[in-house]
This record gives sequence, C-alpha cells and structure tokens, in this order.
Amino acid sequence: MRAEIITIGDELLIGQVVDTNSARMAQQLNDNGIELYQITSVHDDREHIIAAIDDAFKRVDIVLTTGGLGPTKDDITKQVLCDYFDTHLIEDERVRTHIKELYKNRPDILNRLTATQWMVPECAVILPNRVGSAPLMVFHHGKQLLVSMPGVPYEMEIAMEEQILPYILNYELQNTNHEFGHILHRTLQVTGISESALAIILEDFEAQKPGYIRLAYLPKDGIIRLRLSSYGEATEEEMSEWFEKLKTLVREYLIAETDEPLEVIVGKLLVSQGATIATAESCTGGKLASLLNKHAGSSTFYWGSIVSYDNSVKERLLGVPKEVLNTRGAVSEETVRIMAESVRKQIGTTYGIATSGIAGPTGGSESKPVGTVWIAWATPEGTRAECFHLGKLREQITDRACAKALTGMIKILSSKQGNSK
Amino acid sequence: MRAEIITIGDELLIGQVVDTNSARMAQQLNDNGIELYQITSVHDDREHIIAAIDDAFKRVDIVLTTGGLGPTKDDITKQVLCDYFDTHLIEDERVRTHIKELYKNRPDILNRLTATQWMVPECAVILPNRVGSAPLMVFHHGKQLLVSMPGVPYEMEIAMEEQILPYILNYELQNTNHEFGHILHRTLQVTGISESALAIILEDFEAQKPGYIRLAYLPKDGIIRLRLSSYGEATEEEMSEWFEKLKTLVREYLIAETDEPLEVIVGKLLVSQGATIATAESCTGGKLASLLNKHAGSSTFYWGSIVSYDNSVKERLLGVPKEVLNTRGAVSEETVRIMAESVRKQIGTTYGIATSGIAGPTGGSESKPVGTVWIAWATPEGTRAECFHLGKLREQITDRACAKALTGMIKILSSKQGNSK
Repeated sequence: MRAEIITIGDELLIGQVVDTNSARMAQQLNDNGIELYQITSVHDDREHIIAAIDDAFKRVDIVLTTGGLGPTKDDITKQVLCDYFDTHLIEDERVRTHIKELYKNRPDILNRLTATQWMVPECAVILPNRVGSAPLMVFHHGKQLLVSMPGVPYEMEIAMEEQILPYILNYELQNTNHEFGHILHRTLQVTGISESALAIILEDFEAQKPGYIRLAYLPKDGIIRLRLSSYGEATEEEMSEWFEKLKTLVREYLIAETDEPLEVIVGKLLVSQGATIATAESCTGGKLASLLNKHAGSSTFYWGSIVSYDNSVKERLLGVPKEVLNTRGAVSEETVRIMAESVRKQIGTTYGIATSGIAGPTGGSESKPVGTVWIAWATPEGTRAECFHLGKLREQITDRACAKALTGMIKILSSKQGNSK
Repeated sequence: MRAEIITIGDELLIGQVVDTNSARMAQQLNDNGIELYQITSVHDDREHIIAAIDDAFKRVDIVLTTGGLGPTKDDITKQVLCDYFDTHLIEDERVRTHIKELYKNRPDILNRLTATQWMVPECAVILPNRVGSAPLMVFHHGKQLLVSMPGVPYEMEIAMEEQILPYILNYELQNTNHEFGHILHRTLQVTGISESALAIILEDFEAQKPGYIRLAYLPKDGIIRLRLSSYGEATEEEMSEWFEKLKTLVREYLIAETDEPLEVIVGKLLVSQGATIATAESCTGGKLASLLNKHAGSSTFYWGSIVSYDNSVKERLLGVPKEVLNTRGAVSEETVRIMAESVRKQIGTTYGIATSGIAGPTGGSESKPVGTVWIAWATPEGTRAECFHLGKLREQITDRACAKALTGMIKILSSKQGNSK
C-alpha cells in the first residue's frame, strides 16, 4: 500500500518553516508497512491543492494532507476539501463538546472563530483530535482514502499514532484482504572512512546481494549510515543475513549497529555500565549537553555541564590557569584536558567531555584555522584528547564536533563493554 | 518566474533525514524574486525521477533538483538526467583538476569511484562546486532550466548562493527581458494572545487590505508570527503602509517587527546596550545556551552557562541550599531565582536567565504536572520569576520554555531601550 503526503502552507514554500512533519510521518508509515511514495508541498491556494490531490490519487492509495486547518482566513483546506468531495459543512456535536472542554479555562479562545472548528464536512469520517481543536477528517474516494490533519507537529504526531494509522490499517484489512507489504530497513553506522573508499570495500557485496535489497549511503557529520532496505520482497531472515555480512565487511569502522542517534547509543552504554557524564563546552556552546538530555530518561546518566564560552568562565568555573590560556590558547590540548577533568571532578560524574574550537566565521589564524576543534574525554583511567579539522561553516563545525565527541565516547564505552564481557 | 524543487532520496521518504535544504533554498529563491511554487520529494528511482521532472516542467520555469549525485551506486541522478536529456557522459578537465586539488591530502578519497565525479553530461553547462566533488549541472530545456546540485546542505547552500542564483538571474535577464516579480514578505511576532482572538482583532484589517496582499498566521511555541506577502503586485510603499497598520493593531502583543529568531533579537538588544548574559538551565538542558551562541558574533554578549540537570549540581555549582530543594523542590520559584542570581554573579554578566521544569514523560505530580516550568530573569534591577504550563511533550516543553525565556528577556531589554531613548 502506497501513500503520499501533501503538506499545505505558504510558510513551507517561502522557507519560513522547515517541514519536520513529513519525516516523522514517513517513519510512522514505514513502521506500519505503508510505503511513502512521495511528498508534495503546495501553497495555501485552492487550485494548487486540488491539482495536487488529483495527481496524488493517480499515484497512491492513501493521501495524507497536513495544514491549513486553523480558524483564521488563511486556512482554507477544509473548504477546499468540501468542494473537492462535493459536500458541505455541518455542526459536529462531539467536536463541539471536545473543544469546549479543551478550552474551558481559556475564554479568550472560545470565540466565534474557534466555533468554526466544530463545523465538519458531512461526508467525512471524523476522528477525535485529543490535543487540539481541528478535527481529523477521513474522506473515502472509491477504494482510496484522503486524510486531513493539522500541521502542528505534536498534534499531527499524536493524531497519526492514535487515530489515523489504526484507521488506515483496519480499513485496509477489512476492505481489501491485502496483506501488508513487509517494509524492512536495517541501518548501521561507520566512521573513519570516506564514502567512496567504503563503496570500494562493498563492491562485491553490492554485486552479490539480491536486487530487491537496496543499499544506501548516508554521510553526515563524519558518520556514514549504511542502510539496507526491502519493500515487501525480502524476508526478515534474509535481511538479517545480508546485514550480518555487511557488518562483517565494515567491522573496522563500525560504531553502531542501529540507526539510533549517537547520543542515544552513548546513553544506553552509560546506563548499562551504571556510569554518568558531564560536559564542559566552549565551541559547542551547550549543544552537546542538550543532545545528551534530549531523550526521556537522560537524568539517569547525564548530570550537568559548564558552558565556558568566554575565557573568563574557563578560568573561573573550570580552573584553566590564565597562563595556559595566554601561552597555549583556549583552543589547545592543555586547555581542553583541564576542562574535561575539571567538569568531571566538579560535577562528580564517571566521565567528562570537553570541547574547545574555532567555530568562526572570525577568530581563525594560520596555525589554528576556523574549524580547528580540540576534544578531550576524561575517564577514570585517564584523559584522552584529539584535534580535529571540521570544515568552515559555523553550524557544520559545531554539529561535527558533537558527533566526534559522542563517537569518541562510544569507542571508550564499547571497549569497556567488550572488556567486561 | 516560478521554480519547483525536486529532492531526490529514499532517506527523505522513510524519514531518516529531515529536509532542511528545501526551506533554505526557498528563502534564497524568494530573496531573489523567484517564486517557489512546489516542493516534490521522490525516491532514488529512475521512473519516479523522470515522472517528477515531466510534471514539474508543466508547472514551472525552473526545476531545481538536489541529491543523488554521490559516487556510490545508490546515487543515480546524473545517469537519469543523461537519459532524460538524451546525452552521455564526457570527462570534464576542470572538474578533474578541482577534485584532485580538493582531495590532495586525502589519497583514500582519490579512488576510481571518485573519478566518476568528473564525468559530466555533454549537453549540460557545468558550474563549479567549490566545496565538494559533485559538479553542478544546468540543462536547458527550451526556455526552461533544470539545475542539479548535491543534497549535502552546506554544499547546496554555497552552490545556490555563488553559482546557481547568479546563473538563473543572468539567464532570465538575457533571454526574456523579463522584469523579476517583486516578492515581498513582512513579518512581525506577537505573544500573549490566541490565534483566533488575534484574527478577530484583525477582521477589519483583513476586509480592507487589497486581495493581493496576503495575511498569514504562523503560531509556534507560544509566539504567533503574522506575515504579509505579495507576489509582484504590491509596491514596497504599499506593503510598508499595511505593515504599519498591522503593527498598530497588535502593538499590545508585539515582541518583534521582523522574522528574526528570538535569540537574534535578544543578541541585538544586548549588544546595543553593551550588556552580557549567562544561563542556568535545568529542564532546557543547554538548549537555551546553544540558541544564544548559535549565530556568529555571539561571543560579544553570551558568556556561559551552568546546566544543572541533577539536583546535586544545583546545590554545588549554583548554591541552591539543600533545604530549598527539599522543601520547595527543584521546580519552584525559590530555586529558579537562586539559580538565575547565582549564574549572573558567578559568570559576571549583566543578566542571568534560569529555567527549571518538568519536561517529562515522568516526574510530574498533581501540584506540579509535566509541563510546569519556572523561569527567572536576574537583572541589575532585581529578579523576576514566572511559572508556565507548556504542554505535555518533552521537546515541545523545552522548546516553549526557551521561547518564553527569550520573550521575557526581549520585554526586559525593550523596556530599557525605550527608557534610554
């Protein structure tokens, strides 16, 4: 079964908003055996929306639209769908009750514009939107479905998970007796090798594997993710077999056997070893900290950080001697080692990671150009430090520095994991 | 002149990667008077790419494709474009020289797969890719253009800015004598009012303004951005006039007269007042710090942070008495006030912001449910603290907490700006 996402909103087409919804929906669809065939982003414009729906119905079984469901005049999706499916708006008692309950403490919201939210297309199946006011609408179009949902990311995510996916899966089962295609993805992550060098190592593998198992290379921030995919043809056993072969071929560079973010892998390794971590950050400026505590449950292993953006903070809060800062510089092995050891000691964790670098655009010199980053890992067994050159653009440098810091931590923790076995 | 972006890559359609490129390209196109009409994301699949190009040529003048240009087998865009434009690959001397120079210190990359990168379609105009190995290709299709560029974000961005936009603008000027449509967007930001209440305030405004000036509402993290747009019809003066009217109507809720991120507005206000800032973060975990130092030039006003995720860190590094933590709790007015004052004093900045809240999914109670966040702003004139309820989902709560912290700071700094005038 194939789906297409149509995201509706001028804000996407003028670059005012990044479309994070589609990626999340894509994951949810894939996890449920529904192939996402295409994503189309269109303007808040009647003719444009209609053309996009027409085209999508030629390509796929299920059309999922997001956006344009707010109470304001620029939101036109509901009316366009009424026209498309030749229906009209009627009041929905359940939606009205839900909205009145949702905003019972917010009289400023319960006004006549919000009241338009409980008007729904007569021919649509209405599913409840637990966390917002825009109802979820399902239109049946022959054997095809069109689902309209709000574009607010967390409303969309809950709607998909709790209402829309179950509805689609159930509909498909009852009406077509289709077995769902078995979509399989397996990803591993490697580092320390270029994409083309990796491809040469994998030439025989690519020639031998069946054509319906696809291999993709996804390089980012010095990590290459290698993904095997199959859309319905490979069995789980077959995928596992090829995945094991792949793993063996790249073992030397392997840092993860899953697609999990690096900080999740670090977190799991720390928890399994009963260990904790703190960071001292200069150039990464708190980004590493916020990655480490991004996911639920991080308070078990992540305790805190000192972001020492200014040199006075390195001196006062991390005890880097003024002399070291003056003679070696803030971006130096000496400084970053003291930072890592100091934060580990002060916060009282098993490990401490420190970063100091030149994120640019200014501040570079001939001996330390923009992109130079020192990273140190303080451990109970001692401190290791390494210098990297991570490119020229500010965001790229800090993202890559976080990836290097986490990759280094994974290596340290994995070697212990190996030893303790 | 209209453009469409076709992003090529399975990773987008299985949700392994968020498409940030399209938003950036959309901004670049709009800034140069080129309307982005549609974004289409397709699989690394020959027939699918061809169908998407065919469809796009029916809609727009310029088709911009990203992705599928790497040296590995899963990258098929170049070959598909050769087939589409009925041409074949030839060696390009300049591209070869560039790649050899680019990787002169990386012999592991200069292998036979990388060598495929200097093979280019004979009929294409080749533009240099200063920072990567995949050449930029322009195909002329009657009066229409198709441009193919790599999907690596920073390569794409530099390519657009330095090569592709100048090429397109120059081509259009020479070949059609077209004047570029004048695309105008003006955005302001408000807070403290619901979308529907705002729309009621703006009803007369919406009825009076010309139809070719569009008003859009973009709510996010407690901020609503109001955008006026015109695609070629309104003059700058006319836009300014309606923008001023809009500003007057929402003055009570106004926090910014531009679309700049909140942290940029805070930074500019701090710099103009010669002031500095530090943060003490619990629930936001370094996210506020990394926002404040995200942009170039932030070292002038942002000095550092203490991320006190664990209570022991609040006690030891921020001096929150154990008694306060035990009797009032980590998420309390008392704690957050001490945190803000302590970080301001220890780092020695003009201002200190502190956050402490329950980001969930666990840790909530009846009196302090998940989503409860205390924020304090320590200033030379004293400390202000406020409690917020920011939803139920972890990422939403921390994003909104950052927005509230920055909004509060803007209010404090703006009132001073007003006073000092």
